[in-house]
Amino acid sequence: MKMAHLITNCSFSTSPAVQTFSSSPNYCRSVGQLQNSKSSNLSLKSCSRRQKKSYVTCASAAVQGQTQTPLTGSPQAYEHSSSKPKKVMVIGGDGYCGWATALHLSNKGYEVAIVDNLVRRLFDHQLGLDSLTPITSIQNRVRRWKSLTGKTIQLFIGDICDFEFLSEAFKSFEPDAAVHFGEQRSAPYSMIDRSRAVYTQHNNVIGTLNVLFAMKEYSEECHLVKLGTMGEYGTPNIDIEEGFITVTHNGRTDILPYPKQASSFYHLSKVHDSHNIAFTCKAWGIRATDLNQGVVYGVRTDETAMHEELSNRFDYDGVFGTALNRFCVQAAVGHPLTVYGKGGQTRGYLDIRDTVQCVELAIANPAKPGEFRVFNQFTEQFSVNELAKLVTAAGAKLGLEVQTKSVPNPRVEAEEHYYNAKHTKLIELGLVPHLLSDSLLDSLLNFAIQYKDRVDTAQIMPSVLWKKMGAKPWTVSV
Amino acid sequence: MKMAHLITNCSFSTSPAVQTFSSSPNYCRSVGQLQNSKSSNLSLKSCSRRQKKSYVTCASAAVQGQTQTPLTGSPQAYEHSSSKPKKVMVIGGDGYCGWATALHLSNKGYEVAIVDNLVRRLFDHQLGLDSLTPITSIQNRVRRWKSLTGKTIQLFIGDICDFEFLSEAFKSFEPDAAVHFGEQRSAPYSMIDRSRAVYTQHNNVIGTLNVLFAMKEYSEECHLVKLGTMGEYGTPNIDIEEGFITVTHNGRTDILPYPKQASSFYHLSKVHDSHNIAFTCKAWGIRATDLNQGVVYGVRTDETAMHEELSNRFDYDGVFGTALNRFCVQAAVGHPLTVYGKGGQTRGYLDIRDTVQCVELAIANPAKPGEFRVFNQFTEQFSVNELAKLVTAAGAKLGLEVQTKSVPNPRVEAEEHYYNAKHTKLIELGLVPHLLSDSLLDSLLNFAIQYKDRVDTAQIMPSVLWKKMGAKPWTVSV
Repeated sequence: MKMAHLITNCSFSTSPAVQTFSSSPNYCRSVGQLQNSKSSNLSLKSCSRRQKKSYVTCASAAVQGQTQTPLTGSPQAYEHSSSKPKKVMVIGGDGYCGWATALHLSNKGYEVAIVDNLVRRLFDHQLGLDSLTPITSIQNRVRRWKSLTGKTIQLFIGDICDFEFLSEAFKSFEPDAAVHFGEQRSAPYSMIDRSRAVYTQHNNVIGTLNVLFAMKEYSEECHLVKLGTMGEYGTPNIDIEEGFITVTHNGRTDILPYPKQASSFYHLSKVHDSHNIAFTCKAWGIRATDLNQGVVYGVRTDETAMHEELSNRFDYDGVFGTALNRFCVQAAVGHPLTVYGKGGQTRGYLDIRDTVQCVELAIANPAKPGEFRVFNQFTEQFSVNELAKLVTAAGAKLGLEVQTKSVPNPRVEAEEHYYNAKHTKLIELGLVPHLLSDSLLDSLLNFAIQYKDRVDTAQIMPSVLWKKMGAKPWTVSV
Repeated sequence: MKMAHLITNCSFSTSPAVQTFSSSPNYCRSVGQLQNSKSSNLSLKSCSRRQKKSYVTCASAAVQGQTQTPLTGSPQAYEHSSSKPKKVMVIGGDGYCGWATALHLSNKGYEVAIVDNLVRRLFDHQLGLDSLTPITSIQNRVRRWKSLTGKTIQLFIGDICDFEFLSEAFKSFEPDAAVHFGEQRSAPYSMIDRSRAVYTQHNNVIGTLNVLFAMKEYSEECHLVKLGTMGEYGTPNIDIEEGFITVTHNGRTDILPYPKQASSFYHLSKVHDSHNIAFTCKAWGIRATDLNQGVVYGVRTDETAMHEELSNRFDYDGVFGTALNRFCVQAAVGHPLTVYGKGGQTRGYLDIRDTVQCVELAIANPAKPGEFRVFNQFTEQFSVNELAKLVTAAGAKLGLEVQTKSVPNPRVEAEEHYYNAKHTKLIELGLVPHLLSDSLLDSLLNFAIQYKDRVDTAQIMPSVLWKKMGAKPWTVSV
């Protein structure tokens, strides 16, 4: 099949659709890749739904093979007040949190579209990393979801830094809510070198600006649910509040944005986003929820566990792997748990099943027009040493002898500090947390053991990675 | 003279030098323009001071015609402790504050290099704006400075978002201090449309990141003197401190970054810069001073007044013109003073002669390695109504009947609010302010009257400008 074949008229399909917006050579390449992978299952067509925009091409997925009775709703399923399901655009819906969220929302009856440029998969290729779990293409993922549940997830493959693409996605899908996971989300990645620092801030800040402008232009009622990070606050010597703090100073009082002290170019990019979003809420009446998320652990949700083609990615490497998940893999393969420095670093943590629950709660209870709302999205605090002890104990029960090793801290951060962060707003909206239990630890460890043959130990240690990536000495300040 | 003639070996000249770094076709064009303008006065040579970088070309200016005895130092001139003058890179040295600062520092005995891509001049072309004062090319400016004072100002013409260019400038000049004015500095410009909002944040944030990386890579001892803005703080209901505030909360106390509430994409870009710089001070030991400057007025400094070819630009339009300067031009041409909304908006103001003085004080008293220091750089607070009254009274003395008109506020801002911002740190370093006196107002008004034939009244009102620029309705939220 040649490129020219794509440029023919078609009717617009609302069935599971892969849409590739081609306004530059990059997107032409995307279309090309698409053909190579699954051309037999895809009928590629050019859509001329909008006369003025002739470059929109899309592919409707004709799902073949087995189908199952749709799995609809769990006992806690959110009941929509309107008969028409709400439309949710999940930006970054192919990633770790995004994929789980997209499936969860689809399962709960929301009409879901994933917007993603799939660059997270490119990072793996470039850095020589791989998910512990095999994951299939996003096209296969949504096809499998359709075959299992009968539910459609639309795909918009493109870069939100390309406003022309993003505009088309907004105009075509008309979302009621946009969940924005679509950012470079690794602090170590942002600290590898200048070009990755610049990439991270450009990609995240400009991407979010474009989302805000798209909402302003095409979807003023749309509710932005933006993933921030608890890392925006740093580790102040006072309690961390949810976004704002009441300050009395020289006899006067005001409620002010909570001061930010981020400690990587990635965390800083989220600080920048928060400031930009807060301004547009005030200036344009945008409605937004900033979810300052803690460190996410776990891999399985109700939906991703349904079929191996729905599996979520599981990162255990020194760049994208998060603390608890990485420790479980280290324990499974007999590698010492690598604690950076003293290990007193304390952060908020949550189960990925709570990530998807929190996002749903934010969507179901939207911010008011002009409101900039901040929720701290985590369920428990742990120090790195505490996590290491929990994994050691859980490993012992499974007969694993787990060692812990302190390694030089590649980050510039306090290794012993006060930390008390509030996280009540999502509880008030109905969050029922999955706390870190022995059984969850057991299942995480067993999961890591199940996949231990796929572990590449070279990926575990940052120092090895820095060397592989040709990083310069100063990049050890991660 | 053909391009090929430029690429010959030469010895490196420390005389007034125009250096054009050609790593892309853009820079080749710059070289071309240079030849066309003043080729008879320039001997263009290729410098191979660094073997690895063969694309560096430079032009030493052989100044002909009148020369004057160098004007060295004023009674208050800063005495260097070292015999060798300090080297200061003035990024954005062709702009309103940058040009005055570059001349002032050169006059005080610093070795100065201007780094500028001259894009501010392009904005004028694109928006149909012009400085009230005729200004000559940057090449003529530095030549005239050399002829009058014997002092050399090096030129590096290029974009700091191009790291290759910036690296060459740092390696070649080896600055002891980098004064960074090189940002898109208009709030209204940043609010015209999406592309200018994105341009402003990309240009300012990435440019500053590049400066930080260049310092880290090539000049670790270099002191960054970064122009921020008082607008980063917004208008909180408590006193504004200089960068940091002591917060006691739930029985615990910490010194935290002062919360930021910027109200344009431009002001937000400076907030982002401040966060990025603070982090690199902590992580890499960068030494930095963030000068949160108020609204600058005036035009003449000791140095720019020396010759008409040294004249500073004077913006009175609705995009780049600042309040007091714009009012003086309105009064001079009989246009009502345009007060946005109620006019109770209060801000910090300073004379441009204090801008140059403050920057010199910051350079002469550098931050320590790892220190992120914030000075509020203004001398007095005024509301817009107070400024209008002052200009009305000064106009009356000159026989001008000055009217004031309230126009719909194109900005989203409080029009009546508490405002009390501290500004003692620069005073403690020795700042002797030029307060807004009757005689300064008289001279500013007389200056505007002198140039009144050059006033284009269409430039005065933002609404007219928005229309000219084809802006969309929402862009009136400026």
